[in-house]
Amino acid sequence: MDLNAQEKKAGFLQRVKDFANKLKDGVTKHVKNVHKFGKDDPRRIMHSIKVGLALTLVSMLYYVRPLFNSFGVSGMWAILTVVVVFEFTVGGTLSKGFNRGFATLTAGVLAVGAVHIARFCGHKGEPIVLGILVFSLAAAATFSRFFPRIKQRYDYGALIFILTFCMVAVSGYRTDEILVMAYQRLSTILIGGTICILVSIFVCPVWAGEDLHKMIANNIIKLANYLEGFEAEYFPSPEKTTKETNSCVGQYKSILTSKSTEDTLANLARWEPGHGHFRLRHPWKKYLEVAGLVRQCAFHFEILNGYLLSDVKAPQDFISKIQEPCSILIREASEALKAIANSIRTMTRDCLCVNAHIENSKNAIENLRVALKSLSPEIDKDLLEIIPGVTMASILIEIVNCVEKISKAVEELSGLANFKERLDPKLSPELGQHQLLHRGSVKPVLEGANEEKYNKSPHVLITVHDEQPPINEKKVLGAKKARVDVVFDYVFDVVQPELPELPWLDCSDLFGHMAHKPLALSEPPSSLSPTNSAICN
Amino acid sequence: MDLNAQEKKAGFLQRVKDFANKLKDGVTKHVKNVHKFGKDDPRRIMHSIKVGLALTLVSMLYYVRPLFNSFGVSGMWAILTVVVVFEFTVGGTLSKGFNRGFATLTAGVLAVGAVHIARFCGHKGEPIVLGILVFSLAAAATFSRFFPRIKQRYDYGALIFILTFCMVAVSGYRTDEILVMAYQRLSTILIGGTICILVSIFVCPVWAGEDLHKMIANNIIKLANYLEGFEAEYFPSPEKTTKETNSCVGQYKSILTSKSTEDTLANLARWEPGHGHFRLRHPWKKYLEVAGLVRQCAFHFEILNGYLLSDVKAPQDFISKIQEPCSILIREASEALKAIANSIRTMTRDCLCVNAHIENSKNAIENLRVALKSLSPEIDKDLLEIIPGVTMASILIEIVNCVEKISKAVEELSGLANFKERLDPKLSPELGQHQLLHRGSVKPVLEGANEEKYNKSPHVLITVHDEQPPINEKKVLGAKKARVDVVFDYVFDVVQPELPELPWLDCSDLFGHMAHKPLALSEPPSSLSPTNSAICN
Repeated sequence: MDLNAQEKKAGFLQRVKDFANKLKDGVTKHVKNVHKFGKDDPRRIMHSIKVGLALTLVSMLYYVRPLFNSFGVSGMWAILTVVVVFEFTVGGTLSKGFNRGFATLTAGVLAVGAVHIARFCGHKGEPIVLGILVFSLAAAATFSRFFPRIKQRYDYGALIFILTFCMVAVSGYRTDEILVMAYQRLSTILIGGTICILVSIFVCPVWAGEDLHKMIANNIIKLANYLEGFEAEYFPSPEKTTKETNSCVGQYKSILTSKSTEDTLANLARWEPGHGHFRLRHPWKKYLEVAGLVRQCAFHFEILNGYLLSDVKAPQDFISKIQEPCSILIREASEALKAIANSIRTMTRDCLCVNAHIENSKNAIENLRVALKSLSPEIDKDLLEIIPGVTMASILIEIVNCVEKISKAVEELSGLANFKERLDPKLSPELGQHQLLHRGSVKPVLEGANEEKYNKSPHVLITVHDEQPPINEKKVLGAKKARVDVVFDYVFDVVQPELPELPWLDCSDLFGHMAHKPLALSEPPSSLSPTNSAICN
Repeated sequence: MDLNAQEKKAGFLQRVKDFANKLKDGVTKHVKNVHKFGKDDPRRIMHSIKVGLALTLVSMLYYVRPLFNSFGVSGMWAILTVVVVFEFTVGGTLSKGFNRGFATLTAGVLAVGAVHIARFCGHKGEPIVLGILVFSLAAAATFSRFFPRIKQRYDYGALIFILTFCMVAVSGYRTDEILVMAYQRLSTILIGGTICILVSIFVCPVWAGEDLHKMIANNIIKLANYLEGFEAEYFPSPEKTTKETNSCVGQYKSILTSKSTEDTLANLARWEPGHGHFRLRHPWKKYLEVAGLVRQCAFHFEILNGYLLSDVKAPQDFISKIQEPCSILIREASEALKAIANSIRTMTRDCLCVNAHIENSKNAIENLRVALKSLSPEIDKDLLEIIPGVTMASILIEIVNCVEKISKAVEELSGLANFKERLDPKLSPELGQHQLLHRGSVKPVLEGANEEKYNKSPHVLITVHDEQPPINEKKVLGAKKARVDVVFDYVFDVVQPELPELPWLDCSDLFGHMAHKPLALSEPPSSLSPTNSAICN
């Protein structure tokens, strides 16, 4: 029996120990999670501290005797205001603060009027008249909250309007100091609101507009990452490891459903004063337009992703035949997206670089068409088999269209938002090893549909997007550049050693080539793209 | 001069008249808009009246002398509660009500404890200790609001927790009646909350769950409408007028961005008690899964829509060659979607009908493949030209996959939500003109890839999805049906006059056919689909 009791005791102690260990592990895990969550976005911690600070400040209305003497228990309205008005972003705080202040003022005035009218109706009639007024105003204001325009911007104001009107009108029935009460409520709300706004703006502010701006740029980067990941997965090559790209592939999914977040941010951004690079009337609506186009592009990715995950793939020989133009198309579209995102992020205009990439990807589309055309005689065996590949290529072409639309929308945005003109490093005197005066794009020229192999063609078409001939470098940098597109559709040979500088043709070289310097192009023009992209960083 | 003055007066009067007219027009227009807005969803008007009613009820705390004597000015907390807690849906009201009640209770208890602790620290230490406690609890609670799980369900509770704790703790510094204050606040909040919940549930309730249920069914109908509209626009025929369908084509766009609404509704639905056909623990999460698949389908439509709006279309002769299988595919997929939506709407299981349509659309995919295969030798001229058509067809095939996924998810939902088994009208004795014992699908059989024209083939494959042989009809209806798929891949001829009854084969007929009754099928199997769909209404 004694042994049994000892065993029981040991067993009990063991259970207590196990429980303590489990609890410890659980708490440690939880603390780690919370720590990680705060670390992911330290602004969350800062916001929590700010709310604590604002509440401590507003508590002074109670703690400090002279303040308490003048406001009394109405001070609690200030506390209430701080708790409900303080939002994560400055825009949110301003929107709620102004809504609350304005709604309290108008509803207070109306309610005082209503109480005075009701008093004319005698002691018995007063509650009936007040009841009818409260019922009808509350119902009307509640109905107004359903209208999308009011719901979007003034929903909180309408709520506070109902609240204040009812409270002042109803309590006006029992107190004669209704004006004092309305005044105290309004003044304490103003104090609370002001403290919120000041803390929100001056202590590590979080701007909704800046968030929206960064979000759009990040979303575009996500698109670029997906394209890169897609290329690596769909056209695997021995040199590339797909592991790195795998993580980027799923990122675009968040864009599919980000509309409500973007709408909210744009809505709040409109309440914010000018800050940093953003003026008071920054074109936030235009951001939503860009975001819509980005989402459109993500829809295409969603379909494309189906082909990536599908087991039914086009035959390998078909894929290998369209691989090169597809890869270039994808890479150039991805580079264009990166350049667009960079242009947004740095708020600089960089159309030339973006356009060069888009132009390159369009050329890749042409090459893709040529490749598909050249495949036509070979596919009489089975059109069915290549359908997944053809669809994939077709969606890629659509994606380039999307990228172009995004680029145009961002160009419009950059005009409206006064993005700075980017000083081209190639044109600046500091870098002046090569005096490059022209930029253009290069694509192969086929002499006929029966061309044996398009990428063995020794002929290229050089499109020069020329700027007005500069007299000297200094003048170019200062002058407003007028872009003249000059298309030389003259077929000429390109010197191999000069390839790396091709997209930045020296005029003399160009005309040198035109004079039929007889040399051969051994590589397909695709190899030019890395050079082309060098100008964009 | 006099004339001038008269002219001036006349001009002024005219301007006043114009202004009055304009004002009248504006007001009339506005009133009409408001009227239309209310008419679109009369529940909005009802909700406004309900809020007015709840506020009038809660005002009694002030108007009725005995009530005012017991609660005093604390009655305003009841008014405040009604205004902020009353939401459009029952779920919203319950969620806010419970959050508010529970948060007030816990924060109140904690705050009373905090005040008692602070009092130990002497007159000077008290505000400091209170300040530190308010700061840290407010900061911690604010931080907790960032966690997605708390944000989703308990955001309002966390807000009210901060509010109550601060108010009770801070005002506890100035009043000794802190327990009375906490009690009054809690009881008036309970009164306000109870009135809200009662009015919300018993006066024309709006259930978030029901809204979600209807929304999903409507979204599926929108998909079906789009498919019909797409068919009419892409494959116009002289008999059809495209005008009617035009309006349906854009409907699906709302699905693309409806995720946040669905999430909110599902979240609120969880708070609702059982009502109508919905139990307390109705599988709302499953609805979100279905909604996700519906959205996935809508993404495909977005891409398809690009091909509908595009100027670059596949050549007419190509389109006319794939028109028939595509049309059948679209129509059957659309019918399947309608049957799915109907199954959700009526909360009945109707898998057989849905599956029959999906089976038919899958057969149409096979026919489409055959058509594309037969086109292979003809397209050596230009693969490029037919790319838009091929892509369109490929996306249509993907859409059928999406529809099948939706159907499977809805089948799972119908199991979880205990949808009623639909009594098949064909099996019920009332309709028993034909004793149909088998259902199946019909597709053409090609004897080789070189078959001249698939749809002239006299052979069809009949797949019979057979049920266990019933002894008599009554027993079938009562017994749990075990489905056995029997595939007769025996090629046989079909009697023309028996066509309309084909999908509901009589066993004797089937074996009659198998005995090589020599008859020819003059129409392609597509003509069967209207008969097939007749069973679903």
